[in-house]
Amino acid sequence: MNLTQLIHGNVQKHEGQLAVCYQGQSWSYGELSDRVARLAGALQEVGVDIGDRIALMAMNSSRYVEVLFAVPWAGGVFNLVNVRWNVDEVAYGLQDSGARVLIVDDAFATMVPALLAAVPQLETVIFIGDGQCPNGLLCYETLLATTHPITDVYRKGDDLAGIFYTGGTTGKPKGVMLSHANLMTFAVTAALMSGVEQQTRMLHCAPLFHIAGMGFLLMALLQGGTQVLIPGFDPTEVSRAVHTHRITDVLLVPTMMHLLLDAPGFNSSDFKSLSTIIYGASPMPMGTLDKAGELLPHVNLEQGYGMTECGVVTMSSPDFHSLEARQSGRIRSAGVAGALQEIRVFNDQGNELPVGEVGEVVVRGTNVMLGYWGKPELTKDVIVDGWLHTGDGGYIDDQGRLYIVDRVKDMVISGGENVYSSEVETIVSQYPGIAQCAVIGIPSDEWGESVHAVLVSSPDSGTPSSLTVSDLRKFCKQHIAGYKCPRSFEFMDSLPISAAGKILKTELRKPYWKNSEKQVS
Amino acid sequence: MNLTQLIHGNVQKHEGQLAVCYQGQSWSYGELSDRVARLAGALQEVGVDIGDRIALMAMNSSRYVEVLFAVPWAGGVFNLVNVRWNVDEVAYGLQDSGARVLIVDDAFATMVPALLAAVPQLETVIFIGDGQCPNGLLCYETLLATTHPITDVYRKGDDLAGIFYTGGTTGKPKGVMLSHANLMTFAVTAALMSGVEQQTRMLHCAPLFHIAGMGFLLMALLQGGTQVLIPGFDPTEVSRAVHTHRITDVLLVPTMMHLLLDAPGFNSSDFKSLSTIIYGASPMPMGTLDKAGELLPHVNLEQGYGMTECGVVTMSSPDFHSLEARQSGRIRSAGVAGALQEIRVFNDQGNELPVGEVGEVVVRGTNVMLGYWGKPELTKDVIVDGWLHTGDGGYIDDQGRLYIVDRVKDMVISGGENVYSSEVETIVSQYPGIAQCAVIGIPSDEWGESVHAVLVSSPDSGTPSSLTVSDLRKFCKQHIAGYKCPRSFEFMDSLPISAAGKILKTELRKPYWKNSEKQVS
Repeated sequence: MNLTQLIHGNVQKHEGQLAVCYQGQSWSYGELSDRVARLAGALQEVGVDIGDRIALMAMNSSRYVEVLFAVPWAGGVFNLVNVRWNVDEVAYGLQDSGARVLIVDDAFATMVPALLAAVPQLETVIFIGDGQCPNGLLCYETLLATTHPITDVYRKGDDLAGIFYTGGTTGKPKGVMLSHANLMTFAVTAALMSGVEQQTRMLHCAPLFHIAGMGFLLMALLQGGTQVLIPGFDPTEVSRAVHTHRITDVLLVPTMMHLLLDAPGFNSSDFKSLSTIIYGASPMPMGTLDKAGELLPHVNLEQGYGMTECGVVTMSSPDFHSLEARQSGRIRSAGVAGALQEIRVFNDQGNELPVGEVGEVVVRGTNVMLGYWGKPELTKDVIVDGWLHTGDGGYIDDQGRLYIVDRVKDMVISGGENVYSSEVETIVSQYPGIAQCAVIGIPSDEWGESVHAVLVSSPDSGTPSSLTVSDLRKFCKQHIAGYKCPRSFEFMDSLPISAAGKILKTELRKPYWKNSEKQVS
Repeated sequence: MNLTQLIHGNVQKHEGQLAVCYQGQSWSYGELSDRVARLAGALQEVGVDIGDRIALMAMNSSRYVEVLFAVPWAGGVFNLVNVRWNVDEVAYGLQDSGARVLIVDDAFATMVPALLAAVPQLETVIFIGDGQCPNGLLCYETLLATTHPITDVYRKGDDLAGIFYTGGTTGKPKGVMLSHANLMTFAVTAALMSGVEQQTRMLHCAPLFHIAGMGFLLMALLQGGTQVLIPGFDPTEVSRAVHTHRITDVLLVPTMMHLLLDAPGFNSSDFKSLSTIIYGASPMPMGTLDKAGELLPHVNLEQGYGMTECGVVTMSSPDFHSLEARQSGRIRSAGVAGALQEIRVFNDQGNELPVGEVGEVVVRGTNVMLGYWGKPELTKDVIVDGWLHTGDGGYIDDQGRLYIVDRVKDMVISGGENVYSSEVETIVSQYPGIAQCAVIGIPSDEWGESVHAVLVSSPDSGTPSSLTVSDLRKFCKQHIAGYKCPRSFEFMDSLPISAAGKILKTELRKPYWKNSEKQVS
């Protein structure tokens, strides 16, 4: 179970088949393998040794894919940099991983001088952009043209393949160490659940530095499919790529799906070849699902649930999106566990909870990370007796379907009752004039915690005062139990958002808990 | 990647679904899990500790399946005994593995006294038969009824799962050590190539002590299918089981296929539900393929190639059995490598050979065994730089298709040319009056080795002398190159056969090479 075996297998079975398409260029598996072996040679020439980290900060491209395989081919470990990070964050990540080689494209070349100044161990910068190679950087295509291909060092399943940085919403980012077997387990799990074949033509518009982008790329390579890459998500480019390359599968997050379907030039006929949309990161809003059903009725929807620490864990099949699934509520499920991973729900004491009871979702299997880079104590907190504690609150029904209700730390315990902020937010958001809503627990002498809603009103709904708070409370009580309804409301112009687009509830909680011992993060 | 996670996953996802059917009894996944956990408890009570070997000698049954999971659940290692072995061979295997617990059914209970006498460390014998429990043996159902279920010890992927004894044709049998990850890689590889779903209903008539029987059982458990077991192969019982249980998939060896299709009571209508026949162990004769196409036109044929040391390696899809595949010769291929294993062809010096050239087939991947039990030197000879040397001679074409031509040691090198005994045997066997044929190399001053054919005439062809040797030679020359044609012939009443049904060419070579330094094995 290692990454480079995917290249060897595909070369042996279909050397001439189209492997990667990007910006009008395309490479067969034979050509891809040759380029990977040359880049690996170049990496060894600049001193990359077994286990050395190589940082990659770039938009999606065929060269991105080549780097992903050339690094382990040369014996190294890739450190995929979040392309939304600023210079300080990137510098922190490079210092933390100890990368001595950095690979950048046009979009990030301007960061290089600042990074070289901030990261002393950084020695070599390779430019994989489409434009002119900046001074002082090694040009990728020149390296390939002047280096001899080398034999694959052949890393083993348990060897470290990559470091993926996550978080940052609560303190410094953590480097998630994923082995070759971890990543290949993602690929196999997804392939067994979603199905993949040599005829699969997958479009990659979601960033490859995310575990999902990377994992579904590997899945599509398992059986020799074709990978089509565009630099990043853009509705027009997605439509064009699907049409031009007769794309069969695409991975989207719900926001992308919404933007795609709502784009002015959207034309269903561009999507005739499309068979499957895999979505993840968050549940799909019903409105978006409706629109997908209306505009793309022939397309299967599949949801993947997972996280960097363990890749994909559950998937919901198209059957979870049927009319019957809507009526039964099964549509809200994140699906069932893959064949190579187990899920359970634990209480605070680490004991398994019965079917239907809410607690923390835990995961076990070959997919679970090796640990956090340089943070053995944190690793021990998160992986206990082989079970990865996800921090997600949820329950499992009697058919093994997982339902995520909230982040564990976002649950509010009020008067001894669990209140799931996400449930309350769903209701409050439906009230006319509310654009955004975040529900948190704030200190209460009477209830321990009391349910508090932070609201952003819609631009067209006038001033916040025009929303009647008592009406809003009444509205809530019509839909959910009284103890779940917010006892207090607060209006903001906008909610604090992380680089990954998540609402920073930590920030919202801070002012309320500053005199308390409760951890707000 | 461990075996017991298959039970946990299936219980979570479809606890009530039919898991195992045998002799009119059936168990849901929930019941199977409970029985496995109880048997594991009983094994711990008789002293089974982490890594202890438990020998299992029985025909196929639902209890056989329970033992396969209960042993690792309790922390142990199963030692699957070849049911064709005699007492001496079984005793050797038990001594070699050091098993202190033996599990037997009715068919082998009579061997127990002799085994207890011959194997000093043997302490406990458990009876899993359908009949009356013999004196001195622990009764399986009583154990289950009186033991509390225990929590799964949860073995890891790299832990030893089972010891499978092979060979015996060349000296003592060797114990192949397969880890949990090795066995699960078989399951995943086969599932990715053959496809498996919750609706799969697989019939197991091939013995489960063989890696193929075991591997396809695990494959069918990956997605929660139903396993139907009959004690062993019998054409009438197979037809009845397929009809009664609406079987979708069955694993057969070519001889079983031939016997099934030729059975007097064969009725195609019993096989309406059947979708796939997976066959292996040896290529399917064309006559049998023709008959299958005629009698079961709706059934897909898939071939698996592999061996105990590495499980399934290549599979050929139904497309390898089409008319076009026959015309192009692709039907003779063993298929292409799975997604999680690599195949190559090496020459004597361990260098890779180009496409189309014949050498030794080597295999690399998570499927390759941990090694031979207690035989580290032998393991080093067979696994070199991660590549398992299969001993099979073959070549790979430009589409990655593997063709097996012969056992490497059975190739004859005559006048500097490689002659593949299997190719010559195929031709000679077509001559009227020849029932069996084995081609070996014998010493020749002129040619180094000379091609020699050992023949058994058909019962109805009269005495050997009625076959005209010169006509036979002429017949050969019409079909294959002169240097491949046997230079000498010999008639025998029967050929020496191993317990596994393989012709013992070692025995045939012995008299010719007794004064030579060449290894005949």
